Amino acid sequence: MPQTPHTERHFTASEVVRDVVIGMSDGLTVPFALAAGLTGAVSSTRIIVTAGLAEIAAGAIAMGLGGYLAGKSDAEHYAKEREREKREVAEIPHEEMREVAEVFQSYGLTEAETWPIVQALRKQPKQWIDFMMRFELGLEKPDPKRALTSAFTIGGAYAAGGFVPLSPYIATNNVSEALILSIAFTLVTLLVFGFVKGRFTGMRPVRSALQTALIGSVAAGAAFLIARLISE
Amino acid sequence: MPQTPHTERHFTASEVVRDVVIGMSDGLTVPFALAAGLTGAVSSTRIIVTAGLAEIAAGAIAMGLGGYLAGKSDAEHYAKEREREKREVAEIPHEEMREVAEVFQSYGLTEAETWPIVQALRKQPKQWIDFMMRFELGLEKPDPKRALTSAFTIGGAYAAGGFVPLSPYIATNNVSEALILSIAFTLVTLLVFGFVKGRFTGMRPVRSALQTALIGSVAAGAAFLIARLISE
Repeated sequence: MPQTPHTERHFTASEVVRDVVIGMSDGLTVPFALAAGLTGAVSSTRIIVTAGLAEIAAGAIAMGLGGYLAGKSDAEHYAKEREREKREVAEIPHEEMREVAEVFQSYGLTEAETWPIVQALRKQPKQWIDFMMRFELGLEKPDPKRALTSAFTIGGAYAAGGFVPLSPYIATNNVSEALILSIAFTLVTLLVFGFVKGRFTGMRPVRSALQTALIGSVAAGAAFLIARLISE
Repeated sequence: MPQTPHTERHFTASEVVRDVVIGMSDGLTVPFALAAGLTGAVSSTRIIVTAGLAEIAAGAIAMGLGGYLAGKSDAEHYAKEREREKREVAEIPHEEMREVAEVFQSYGLTEAETWPIVQALRKQPKQWIDFMMRFELGLEKPDPKRALTSAFTIGGAYAAGGFVPLSPYIATNNVSEALILSIAFTLVTLLVFGFVKGRFTGMRPVRSALQTALIGSVAAGAAFLIARLISE
């Protein structure tokens, strides 16, 4: 009994962590790169702040809605496949029994060894369908509230991340000064974020911190160069 | 024999489709919304093109690298968990045997029914480990080339999508004219993209087309309003 809620909690936590990582990675990188890129082309922080806020709004909404739809389509896909398995178990049970046996035979078991399982599942259609979903199709039942949670987590993380590189442009009117502060703030945040992310995902934290900071810098550097090139 | 390559091909195709959908959804939406949002705040298409190209570069690189890291971390996670299972199978085989039995008992099978499977797996440690990976932990072995393919697919789809809303701003100097053309181009592309996406993902194409167009419009509309509000 205590095992099921434990597994559930573990699963949910790592999904939220994944969503925060998805949203914040892009939220820190893209608005940072956009602002840095525009610094090479315009001399007013007002335009950079406007573009940055428009980008944060668009990015947070687009990514949040993307997460919502991904969650919804997982749930729909699962429901559709389950209907199909239910029909097949009822209509072509012998074919499905052969499929159960094949799953086990791919792990080197003989037909005789798999026979008791096939027979036992046959007597319990509900468990049989669940078994096919997980072991033949490799599908886990999605959490119905997942799509909405995912949308707000990804969108919120994107917006939170986006304000870090943009805040110096809001605070000062000097574009070059804002750029330097923005680079510093974002690098520090990327390092901290990468470190914490490494802790949660089981990667070595220092390696994760450096890797995350490197990605942000590469994306921003490329955008900065492109903006410079076209504005000269 | 013919079943394995078939399954493999199906799996690979849907992963590529998923990556194109991830990249193109955001690529069509975010640069569109950014350009539309800036139209409310600046009067020069040059700044909008600069901001748009910087955003496309930053977004494509950030999303592509994000896809690369996600693929890499899936592969690392799998390898780490496999090492752990390998150790456990060698060091605490009785505990692992109990876990195999528990997997089946959760589907309503009795201990006597699961016994032959447990015994058979015990004799083949390699298959036993593979079995635990898939059935206890629910992990599929990731394709080693997946991370790189994923990076280029997502990044390329983002850039390809991003040029659609930006192209009118490149072609004309009139901001209002460019905005109208950008809205038209992007709406048509979102509808077509949503339709094709629906075909691939098994959703009703017309519903998918309308839903995709709606998301792009909502994200863009919100960004446009925010940019207007702060620039007045």
